[in-house]
Amino acid sequence: MRNLRVVVSYDGTRYYGFQTQPGGNTIQDVIQDTIKKLSGEEVHIIGSGRTDAGVHARGQVFNFHTAAAIPVERWAIALNTRLPTDIVIRSVDEVEPEFHSSYSAKRKTYRYSIDMNKFPDVFERRYRFHHPTPLCVDGMRKGLAALVGTHDFSSFTSRRSTKTTHIRTVFEARIDEQDGKLDLFISGGGFLYNMVRVITGTLLLVGEGKLTADDVSVILEARDRSAAGPTAMAHGLNLWEVEYLE
Amino acid sequence: MRNLRVVVSYDGTRYYGFQTQPGGNTIQDVIQDTIKKLSGEEVHIIGSGRTDAGVHARGQVFNFHTAAAIPVERWAIALNTRLPTDIVIRSVDEVEPEFHSSYSAKRKTYRYSIDMNKFPDVFERRYRFHHPTPLCVDGMRKGLAALVGTHDFSSFTSRRSTKTTHIRTVFEARIDEQDGKLDLFISGGGFLYNMVRVITGTLLLVGEGKLTADDVSVILEARDRSAAGPTAMAHGLNLWEVEYLE
Repeated sequence: MRNLRVVVSYDGTRYYGFQTQPGGNTIQDVIQDTIKKLSGEEVHIIGSGRTDAGVHARGQVFNFHTAAAIPVERWAIALNTRLPTDIVIRSVDEVEPEFHSSYSAKRKTYRYSIDMNKFPDVFERRYRFHHPTPLCVDGMRKGLAALVGTHDFSSFTSRRSTKTTHIRTVFEARIDEQDGKLDLFISGGGFLYNMVRVITGTLLLVGEGKLTADDVSVILEARDRSAAGPTAMAHGLNLWEVEYLE
Repeated sequence: MRNLRVVVSYDGTRYYGFQTQPGGNTIQDVIQDTIKKLSGEEVHIIGSGRTDAGVHARGQVFNFHTAAAIPVERWAIALNTRLPTDIVIRSVDEVEPEFHSSYSAKRKTYRYSIDMNKFPDVFERRYRFHHPTPLCVDGMRKGLAALVGTHDFSSFTSRRSTKTTHIRTVFEARIDEQDGKLDLFISGGGFLYNMVRVITGTLLLVGEGKLTADDVSVILEARDRSAAGPTAMAHGLNLWEVEYLE
Protein backbone atom coordinates (compact mmCIF):
# COMPACT_ATOMS: atom_id res chain seq x y z
CA MET A 1 0.00 0.00 0.00
CA ARG A 2 1.32 3.40 -0.95
CA ASN A 3 0.45 6.54 1.01
CA LEU A 4 -0.37 9.42 -1.37
CA ARG A 5 -0.49 13.07 -0.37
CA VAL A 6 -2.76 15.26 -2.49
CA VAL A 7 -3.08 19.06 -2.71
CA VAL A 8 -6.55 20.06 -3.86
CA SER A 9 -8.25 23.39 -4.56
CA TYR A 10 -12.00 23.78 -4.60
CA ASP A 11 -14.75 26.33 -4.95
CA GLY A 12 -16.86 25.41 -1.92
CA THR A 13 -19.96 27.34 -3.03
CA ARG A 14 -22.15 24.33 -3.79
CA TYR A 15 -20.80 21.86 -1.22
CA TYR A 16 -21.71 21.07 2.39
CA GLY A 17 -18.08 21.42 3.44
CA PHE A 18 -15.08 19.13 3.19
CA GLN A 19 -15.93 16.33 5.56
CA THR A 20 -18.22 13.48 4.55
CA GLN A 21 -21.83 13.64 5.74
CA PRO A 22 -24.79 11.28 5.60
CA GLY A 23 -26.45 13.41 2.88
CA GLY A 24 -23.31 13.42 0.74
CA ASN A 25 -22.44 16.42 -1.44
CA THR A 26 -19.21 17.13 0.39
CA ILE A 27 -15.74 17.53 -1.12
CA GLN A 28 -14.64 14.30 0.60
CA ASP A 29 -17.62 12.34 -0.77
CA VAL A 30 -17.01 13.56 -4.32
CA ILE A 31 -13.28 12.79 -4.20
CA GLN A 32 -13.79 9.34 -2.65
CA ASP A 33 -16.39 8.51 -5.30
CA THR A 34 -13.99 9.66 -8.01
CA ILE A 35 -11.14 7.53 -6.63
CA LYS A 36 -13.52 4.56 -6.58
CA LYS A 37 -14.42 5.13 -10.24
CA LEU A 38 -10.73 5.36 -11.12
CA SER A 39 -9.18 2.53 -9.11
CA GLY A 40 -12.16 0.55 -7.85
CA GLU A 41 -11.01 1.09 -4.27
CA GLU A 42 -13.22 2.20 -1.38
CA VAL A 43 -10.77 4.59 0.24
CA HIS A 44 -11.14 6.90 3.20
CA ILE A 45 -9.28 10.14 2.56
CA ILE A 46 -7.79 12.01 5.53
CA GLY A 47 -8.06 15.79 5.25
CA SER A 48 -5.74 18.26 7.02
CA GLY A 49 -8.90 19.51 8.64
CA ARG A 50 -12.51 20.14 7.76
CA THR A 51 -13.76 23.24 6.00
CA ASP A 52 -17.35 24.39 6.54
CA ALA A 53 -20.14 24.59 3.99
CA GLY A 54 -19.37 27.32 1.45
CA VAL A 55 -15.73 27.71 2.50
CA HIS A 56 -13.15 27.45 -0.30
CA ALA A 57 -9.65 26.01 -0.44
CA ARG A 58 -6.70 26.97 -2.57
CA GLY A 59 -4.50 24.39 -0.87
CA GLN A 60 -6.35 21.77 1.15
CA VAL A 61 -4.26 18.62 1.69
CA PHE A 62 -5.42 15.04 2.16
CA ASN A 63 -3.77 11.63 2.09
CA PHE A 64 -4.98 8.10 1.46
CA HIS A 65 -3.58 4.60 1.16
CA THR A 66 -3.88 2.76 -2.12
CA ALA A 67 -2.94 -0.59 -3.60
CA ALA A 68 -3.73 0.61 -7.13
CA ALA A 69 -1.04 0.16 -9.80
CA ILE A 70 -1.62 3.70 -11.19
CA PRO A 71 1.77 5.51 -11.32
CA VAL A 72 1.98 8.48 -8.92
CA GLU A 73 2.48 10.97 -11.77
CA ARG A 74 -0.76 9.82 -13.46
CA TRP A 75 -3.07 10.27 -10.47
CA ALA A 76 -3.63 14.05 -10.71
CA ILE A 77 -4.62 14.12 -14.36
CA ALA A 78 -6.68 10.94 -14.03
CA LEU A 79 -8.66 12.42 -11.12
CA ASN A 80 -9.05 15.86 -12.72
CA THR A 81 -10.58 14.45 -15.88
CA ARG A 82 -13.24 12.75 -13.70
CA LEU A 83 -13.87 15.48 -11.09
CA PRO A 84 -16.39 18.34 -11.47
CA THR A 85 -14.78 21.60 -12.62
CA ASP A 86 -15.04 23.22 -9.17
CA ILE A 87 -12.61 20.70 -7.65
CA VAL A 88 -9.06 20.62 -9.05
CA ILE A 89 -6.24 18.37 -7.87
CA ARG A 90 -3.02 20.41 -7.89
CA SER A 91 -0.48 17.68 -7.07
CA VAL A 92 -0.10 14.11 -5.89
CA ASP A 93 3.08 12.69 -4.36
CA GLU A 94 4.03 9.56 -2.46
CA VAL A 95 4.87 10.04 1.22
CA GLU A 96 6.05 7.93 4.16
CA PRO A 97 3.50 5.38 5.45
CA GLU A 98 3.14 7.29 8.72
CA PHE A 99 2.36 10.64 7.07
CA HIS A 100 -1.06 11.93 8.23
CA SER A 101 -2.46 15.12 6.64
CA SER A 102 -3.85 16.38 9.93
CA TYR A 103 -1.37 15.17 12.58
CA SER A 104 1.71 15.90 10.43
CA ALA A 105 0.65 19.48 9.56
CA LYS A 106 3.00 22.11 11.00
CA ARG A 107 1.37 25.29 9.80
CA LYS A 108 -1.92 26.30 8.24
CA THR A 109 -2.77 29.58 6.54
CA TYR A 110 -6.27 30.90 5.94
CA ARG A 111 -7.28 33.91 3.90
CA TYR A 112 -10.42 35.94 4.56
CA SER A 113 -11.37 38.31 1.72
CA ILE A 114 -13.48 41.46 1.98
CA ASP A 115 -14.68 43.88 -0.69
CA MET A 116 -15.25 47.38 0.77
CA ASN A 117 -16.28 48.96 -2.52
CA LYS A 118 -19.78 50.37 -2.74
CA PHE A 119 -20.63 47.72 -5.34
CA PRO A 120 -18.97 44.29 -5.37
CA ASP A 121 -16.54 42.95 -7.95
CA VAL A 122 -18.81 40.59 -9.89
CA PHE A 123 -15.93 38.22 -10.68
CA GLU A 124 -15.10 37.68 -7.00
CA ARG A 125 -18.55 37.79 -5.50
CA ARG A 126 -18.43 34.09 -4.56
CA TYR A 127 -15.06 34.45 -2.82
CA ARG A 128 -15.10 37.88 -1.17
CA PHE A 129 -17.47 39.13 1.52
CA HIS A 130 -19.06 42.41 0.44
CA HIS A 131 -19.02 45.12 3.11
CA PRO A 132 -20.23 48.18 1.20
CA THR A 133 -19.06 50.81 3.68
CA PRO A 134 -15.44 51.71 4.48
CA LEU A 135 -13.61 50.02 7.34
CA CYS A 136 -10.85 51.41 9.55
CA VAL A 137 -8.13 49.02 8.40
CA ASP A 138 -5.49 50.35 10.82
CA GLY A 139 -7.76 49.53 13.74
CA MET A 140 -8.37 46.04 12.36
CA ARG A 141 -4.61 45.52 11.99
CA LYS A 142 -4.00 46.55 15.60
CA GLY A 143 -6.75 44.27 16.83
CA LEU A 144 -5.41 41.39 14.76
CA ALA A 145 -1.88 41.91 16.15
CA ALA A 146 -3.23 41.28 19.67
CA LEU A 147 -4.10 37.71 18.64
CA VAL A 148 -0.63 36.72 17.44
CA GLY A 149 1.08 34.32 19.85
CA THR A 150 -0.09 31.46 22.05
CA HIS A 151 -3.44 32.11 23.70
CA ASP A 152 -6.61 30.46 24.90
CA PHE A 153 -8.94 31.23 21.99
CA SER A 154 -12.19 30.17 23.73
CA SER A 155 -13.75 33.55 22.85
CA PHE A 156 -13.03 32.93 19.17
CA THR A 157 -14.50 29.50 18.61
CA SER A 158 -17.98 28.11 18.20
CA ARG A 159 -19.74 26.99 21.37
CA ARG A 160 -20.04 23.66 19.58
CA SER A 161 -16.27 23.11 19.79
CA THR A 162 -15.51 19.76 21.43
CA LYS A 163 -11.77 20.26 21.83
CA THR A 164 -10.29 19.63 25.28
CA THR A 165 -8.06 22.69 25.01
CA HIS A 166 -8.62 25.97 23.22
CA ILE A 167 -4.98 27.00 23.44
CA ARG A 168 -3.60 27.61 19.97
CA THR A 169 -0.67 29.52 18.48
CA VAL A 170 -1.03 32.14 15.77
CA PHE A 171 2.38 32.51 14.12
CA GLU A 172 1.63 35.59 12.04
CA ALA A 173 -1.25 37.57 10.62
CA ARG A 174 -1.62 40.54 8.31
CA ILE A 175 -4.20 42.44 6.29
CA ASP A 176 -3.36 43.41 2.69
CA GLU A 177 -5.33 46.27 1.16
CA GLN A 178 -5.66 47.09 -2.53
CA ASP A 179 -8.39 48.81 -4.59
CA GLY A 180 -10.81 48.78 -1.68
CA LYS A 181 -10.31 45.06 -1.13
CA LEU A 182 -8.90 43.46 2.03
CA ASP A 183 -7.19 40.08 2.33
CA LEU A 184 -6.63 38.91 5.88
CA PHE A 185 -3.99 36.17 6.07
CA ILE A 186 -3.57 34.26 9.31
CA SER A 187 -1.09 31.43 9.92
CA GLY A 188 -0.96 29.15 12.90
CA GLY A 189 -0.22 25.68 14.18
CA GLY A 190 -3.90 24.83 14.10
CA PHE A 191 -7.28 26.52 14.31
CA LEU A 192 -10.43 25.88 16.33
CA TYR A 193 -13.88 25.42 14.80
CA ASN A 194 -14.99 28.75 13.23
CA MET A 195 -11.92 30.49 14.70
CA VAL A 196 -10.92 32.52 11.62
CA ARG A 197 -14.52 33.50 10.95
CA VAL A 198 -15.13 34.68 14.55
CA ILE A 199 -11.83 36.60 14.50
CA THR A 200 -12.89 38.24 11.22
CA GLY A 201 -16.39 39.00 12.49
CA THR A 202 -14.87 40.68 15.55
CA LEU A 203 -12.36 42.66 13.49
CA LEU A 204 -15.21 43.86 11.25
CA LEU A 205 -16.76 45.44 14.37
CA VAL A 206 -13.41 47.13 15.03
CA GLY A 207 -13.31 48.33 11.42
CA GLU A 208 -16.81 49.75 11.81
CA GLY A 209 -15.79 51.59 14.99
CA LYS A 210 -18.15 49.55 17.16
CA LEU A 211 -15.21 48.07 19.06
CA THR A 212 -11.70 49.45 19.62
CA ALA A 213 -8.51 47.57 18.80
CA ASP A 214 -7.86 47.33 22.56
CA ASP A 215 -11.20 45.57 23.03
CA VAL A 216 -9.79 42.59 21.11
CA SER A 217 -7.36 41.81 23.97
CA VAL A 218 -10.19 42.12 26.50
CA ILE A 219 -12.33 39.74 24.42
CA LEU A 220 -9.42 37.27 24.20
CA GLU A 221 -8.97 37.33 27.98
CA ALA A 222 -12.71 36.79 28.57
CA ARG A 223 -12.46 33.23 27.15
CA ASP A 224 -16.16 33.49 26.37
CA ARG A 225 -17.68 33.23 22.88
CA SER A 226 -20.35 35.76 23.73
CA ALA A 227 -17.70 38.47 24.24
CA ALA A 228 -16.62 38.29 20.56
CA GLY A 229 -18.33 39.46 17.37
CA PRO A 230 -20.46 37.41 14.98
CA THR A 231 -19.15 34.57 12.80
CA ALA A 232 -18.24 36.12 9.43
CA MET A 233 -19.88 34.68 6.30
CA ALA A 234 -18.40 31.40 5.02
CA HIS A 235 -17.84 32.44 1.40
CA GLY A 236 -15.06 34.93 2.23
CA LEU A 237 -12.91 32.18 3.78
CA ASN A 238 -10.27 30.17 1.94
CA LEU A 239 -7.92 27.50 3.31
CA TRP A 240 -4.87 28.93 1.61
CA GLU A 241 -1.99 26.59 2.46
CA VAL A 242 -1.06 23.67 4.69
CA GLU A 243 2.63 23.14 5.36
CA TYR A 244 4.58 20.10 6.55
CA LEU A 245 8.14 19.46 7.66
CA GLU A 246 9.76 17.62 4.78
CA MET B 1 -36.17 63.04 -20.58
CA ARG B 2 -32.75 62.54 -19.08
CA ASN B 3 -30.06 60.51 -20.83
CA LEU B 4 -28.28 58.22 -18.35
CA ARG B 5 -24.94 56.53 -18.99
CA VAL B 6 -24.35 53.31 -17.05
CA VAL B 7 -21.19 51.27 -16.50
CA VAL B 8 -22.03 47.61 -15.85
CA SER B 9 -19.97 44.52 -15.11
CA TYR B 10 -21.29 41.02 -15.64
CA ASP B 11 -20.32 37.39 -15.48
CA GLY B 12 -21.56 36.26 -18.90
CA THR B 13 -21.43 32.53 -18.11
CA ARG B 14 -25.17 31.89 -18.02
CA TYR B 15 -26.33 34.49 -20.58
CA TYR B 16 -26.85 34.42 -24.36
CA GLY B 17 -24.74 37.56 -24.77
CA PHE B 18 -25.48 41.23 -24.24
CA GLN B 19 -27.95 42.00 -26.99
CA THR B 20 -31.65 41.20 -26.65
CA GLN B 21 -32.87 38.05 -28.39
CA PRO B 22 -36.30 36.52 -28.96
CA GLY B 23 -35.58 33.81 -26.39
CA GLY B 24 -34.54 36.35 -23.76
CA ASN B 25 -31.87 35.51 -21.16
CA THR B 26 -29.52 38.23 -22.36
CA ILE B 27 -27.90 40.97 -20.29
CA GLN B 28 -29.96 43.59 -22.12
CA ASP B 29 -33.22 41.74 -21.44
CA VAL B 30 -32.48 41.35 -17.75
CA ILE B 31 -31.48 45.00 -17.33
CA GLN B 32 -34.49 46.29 -19.27
CA ASP B 33 -36.80 44.12 -17.17
CA THR B 34 -35.17 45.44 -14.01
CA ILE B 35 -35.58 49.07 -15.12
CA LYS B 36 -39.23 48.34 -15.83
CA LYS B 37 -39.71 46.92 -12.33
CA LEU B 38 -38.02 49.97 -10.85
CA SER B 39 -39.51 52.84 -12.85
CA GLY B 40 -42.36 51.25 -14.78
CA GLU B 41 -40.79 52.38 -18.05
CA GLU B 42 -40.33 50.21 -21.14
CA VAL B 43 -36.86 51.43 -22.09
CA HIS B 44 -34.49 50.33 -24.83
CA ILE B 45 -30.92 50.42 -23.58
CA ILE B 46 -28.14 51.16 -26.07
CA GLY B 47 -24.98 49.16 -25.46
CA SER B 48 -21.49 50.26 -26.56
CA GLY B 49 -21.51 47.05 -28.56
CA ARG B 50 -22.70 43.49 -28.20
CA THR B 51 -20.81 40.78 -26.37
CA ASP B 52 -21.29 37.15 -27.38
CA ALA B 53 -22.78 34.34 -25.32
CA GLY B 54 -20.44 33.50 -22.44
CA VAL B 55 -18.31 36.64 -22.82
CA HIS B 56 -17.85 38.75 -19.67
CA ALA B 57 -17.60 42.48 -19.11
CA ARG B 58 -15.79 44.43 -16.44
CA GLY B 59 -16.81 47.74 -18.01
CA GLN B 60 -19.62 47.51 -20.56
CA VAL B 61 -21.38 50.85 -21.06
CA PHE B 62 -24.98 51.54 -22.07
CA ASN B 63 -27.27 54.54 -22.07
CA PHE B 64 -31.02 55.06 -22.02
CA HIS B 65 -33.52 57.86 -21.83
CA THR B 66 -35.81 58.12 -18.84
CA ALA B 67 -38.57 60.36 -17.56
CA ALA B 68 -38.47 58.74 -14.10
CA ALA B 69 -38.10 61.05 -11.11
CA ILE B 70 -35.49 58.78 -9.47
CA PRO B 71 -32.40 60.90 -8.61
CA VAL B 72 -29.29 59.98 -10.62
CA GLU B 73 -27.34 58.99 -7.52
CA ARG B 74 -30.05 56.47 -6.50
CA TRP B 75 -30.20 54.53 -9.76
CA ALA B 76 -27.17 52.29 -9.24
CA ILE B 77 -28.12 51.01 -5.81
CA ALA B 78 -31.80 50.69 -6.80
CA LEU B 79 -30.90 48.56 -9.83
CA ASN B 80 -28.28 46.48 -7.97
CA THR B 81 -30.73 45.45 -5.25
CA ARG B 82 -33.03 44.10 -8.00
CA LEU B 83 -30.49 42.56 -10.40
CA PRO B 84 -29.16 38.99 -10.15
CA THR B 85 -25.76 38.78 -8.43
CA ASP B 86 -23.89 38.16 -11.70
CA ILE B 87 -24.78 41.62 -13.05
CA VAL B 88 -23.50 44.64 -11.09
CA ILE B 89 -24.05 48.29 -12.03
CA ARG B 90 -20.83 50.18 -11.28
CA SER B 91 -21.97 53.75 -11.92
CA VAL B 92 -24.76 55.86 -13.40
CA ASP B 93 -24.36 59.46 -14.52
CA GLU B 94 -26.39 61.93 -16.55
CA VAL B 95 -24.98 62.82 -19.98
CA GLU B 96 -25.83 65.12 -22.87
CA PRO B 97 -28.99 64.17 -24.81
CA GLU B 98 -26.93 63.31 -27.90
CA PHE B 99 -24.60 60.91 -26.06
CA HIS B 100 -24.79 57.42 -27.63
CA SER B 101 -22.87 54.55 -25.98
CA SER B 102 -21.82 53.08 -29.31
CA TYR B 103 -21.35 56.08 -31.63
CA SER B 104 -19.70 58.25 -28.95
CA ALA B 105 -17.16 55.58 -27.91
CA LYS B 106 -13.57 56.59 -28.66
CA ARG B 107 -11.68 53.56 -27.44
CA LYS B 108 -12.50 50.05 -26.33
CA THR B 109 -10.27 47.61 -24.48
CA TYR B 110 -10.76 43.87 -24.32
CA ARG B 111 -8.88 41.38 -22.18
CA TYR B 112 -8.38 37.73 -23.15
CA SER B 113 -7.17 35.52 -20.28
CA ILE B 114 -5.29 32.23 -20.57
CA ASP B 115 -4.11 29.79 -17.91
CA MET B 116 -1.04 27.82 -19.08
CA ASN B 117 -0.64 25.85 -15.87
CA LYS B 118 -0.98 22.10 -16.07
CA PHE B 119 -4.13 22.30 -13.93
CA PRO B 120 -6.43 25.35 -13.97
CA ASP B 121 -6.95 27.86 -11.17
CA VAL B 122 -10.35 26.74 -9.86
CA PHE B 123 -11.30 30.28 -8.86
CA GLU B 124 -10.79 31.64 -12.39
CA ARG B 125 -12.01 28.70 -14.42
CA ARG B 126 -15.05 30.61 -15.68
CA TYR B 127 -12.94 33.60 -16.81
CA ARG B 128 -9.69 32.14 -18.10
CA PHE B 129 -9.18 29.73 -21.01
CA HIS B 130 -7.16 26.71 -19.88
CA HIS B 131 -4.32 25.79 -22.21
CA PRO B 132 -2.48 23.10 -20.25
CA THR B 133 0.76 23.18 -22.22
CA PRO B 134 3.31 26.02 -22.33
CA LEU B 135 3.09 28.71 -25.00
CA CYS B 136 5.90 30.73 -26.57
CA VAL B 137 4.81 34.10 -25.23
CA ASP B 138 7.54 36.05 -27.04
CA GLY B 139 6.29 34.73 -30.37
CA MET B 140 2.73 35.66 -29.46
CA ARG B 141 3.86 39.18 -28.53
CA LYS B 142 5.64 39.60 -31.87
CA GLY B 143 2.61 38.35 -33.77
CA LEU B 144 0.33 40.66 -31.80
CA ALA B 145 2.57 43.68 -32.53
CA ALA B 146 2.00 43.13 -36.26
CA LEU B 147 -1.70 43.89 -35.75
CA VAL B 148 -1.24 47.30 -34.10
CA GLY B 149 -2.20 50.15 -36.44
CA THR B 150 -4.88 50.66 -39.09
CA HIS B 151 -5.51 47.56 -41.19
CA ASP B 152 -8.17 45.64 -43.05
CA PHE B 153 -9.00 42.95 -40.49
CA SER B 154 -11.09 40.74 -42.83
CA SER B 155 -8.94 37.73 -41.89
CA PHE B 156 -9.78 38.27 -38.22
CA THR B 157 -13.55 38.49 -38.24
CA SER B 158 -16.38 36.03 -38.56
CA ARG B 159 -17.61 35.30 -42.07
CA ARG B 160 -20.98 36.40 -40.69
CA SER B 161 -19.76 40.00 -40.34
CA THR B 162 -22.13 42.37 -42.15
CA LYS B 163 -19.96 45.48 -41.89
CA THR B 164 -19.30 47.42 -45.11
CA THR B 165 -15.67 47.97 -44.16
CA HIS B 166 -13.31 45.78 -42.18
CA ILE B 167 -10.75 48.52 -41.68
CA ARG B 168 -10.16 49.12 -37.99
CA THR B 169 -7.43 50.69 -35.86
CA VAL B 170 -5.73 48.88 -33.00
CA PHE B 171 -4.17 51.56 -30.78
CA GLU B 172 -2.13 49.27 -28.56
CA ALA B 173 -1.88 45.68 -27.45
CA ARG B 174 0.18 43.75 -24.95
CA ILE B 175 0.41 40.39 -23.19
CA ASP B 176 1.04 40.33 -19.43
CA GLU B 177 2.43 37.12 -17.96
CA GLN B 178 2.42 36.08 -14.31
CA ASP B 179 2.39 32.69 -12.57
CA GLY B 180 1.75 30.84 -15.82
CA LYS B 181 -1.22 33.06 -16.64
CA LEU B 182 -1.48 35.34 -19.67
CA ASP B 183 -3.66 38.44 -20.02
CA LEU B 184 -3.84 39.83 -23.54
CA PHE B 185 -5.06 43.45 -23.56
CA ILE B 186 -6.04 45.02 -26.86
CA SER B 187 -7.34 48.58 -27.33
CA GLY B 188 -8.81 50.04 -30.47
CA GLY B 189 -11.34 52.41 -31.93
CA GLY B 190 -13.71 49.55 -32.58
CA PHE B 191 -13.68 45.82 -33.16
CA LEU B 192 -15.32 43.53 -35.70
CA TYR B 193 -17.50 40.56 -34.81
CA ASN B 194 -15.31 37.89 -33.14
CA MET B 195 -12.17 39.94 -33.88
CA VAL B 196 -10.44 39.58 -30.50
CA ARG B 197 -11.29 35.89 -30.33
CA VAL B 198 -9.94 35.17 -33.84
CA ILE B 199 -6.78 37.17 -33.06
CA THR B 200 -6.35 35.16 -29.87
CA GLY B 201 -7.01 31.85 -31.61
CA THR B 202 -4.35 32.72 -34.20
CA LEU B 203 -1.84 33.81 -31.54
CA LEU B 204 -2.42 30.53 -29.71
CA LEU B 205 -1.19 28.74 -32.87
CA VAL B 206 1.89 30.99 -32.79
CA GLY B 207 2.39 30.17 -29.11
CA GLU B 208 2.15 26.46 -29.92
CA GLY B 209 4.75 26.81 -32.68
CA LYS B 210 2.27 25.88 -35.42
CA LEU B 211 2.59 29.37 -36.95
CA THR B 212 5.46 31.87 -36.77
CA ALA B 213 5.07 35.48 -35.64
CA ASP B 214 5.77 36.52 -39.24
CA ASP B 215 2.82 34.45 -40.44
CA VAL B 216 0.49 36.88 -38.62
CA SER B 217 1.36 39.65 -41.10
CA VAL B 218 0.80 37.27 -44.01
CA ILE B 219 -2.60 36.28 -42.57
CA LEU B 220 -3.52 39.96 -42.13
CA GLU B 221 -2.64 40.70 -45.75
CA ALA B 222 -4.67 37.71 -46.99
CA ARG B 223 -7.94 39.42 -45.92
CA ASP B 224 -9.46 35.97 -45.73
CA ARG B 225 -10.94 34.43 -42.58
CA SER B 226 -9.76 30.95 -43.61
CA ALA B 227 -6.14 32.11 -43.38
CA ALA B 228 -6.39 32.76 -39.63
CA GLY B 229 -6.66 30.41 -36.67
CA PRO B 230 -9.81 29.24 -34.86
CA THR B 231 -12.07 31.49 -32.80
CA ALA B 232 -10.87 31.24 -29.20
CA MET B 233 -13.39 30.14 -26.54
CA ALA B 234 -15.83 32.82 -25.37
CA HIS B 235 -15.26 32.47 -21.63
CA GLY B 236 -11.71 33.87 -21.75
CA LEU B 237 -12.91 37.19 -23.17
CA ASN B 238 -13.80 40.26 -21.13
CA LEU B 239 -14.91 43.70 -22.36
CA TRP B 240 -12.57 45.58 -20.05
CA GLU B 241 -13.24 49.26 -20.65
CA VAL B 242 -15.03 51.65 -23.00
CA GLU B 243 -13.74 55.22 -23.10
CA TYR B 244 -15.38 58.46 -24.25
CA LEU B 245 -14.18 62.01 -24.79
CA GLU B 246 -15.53 63.98 -21.86
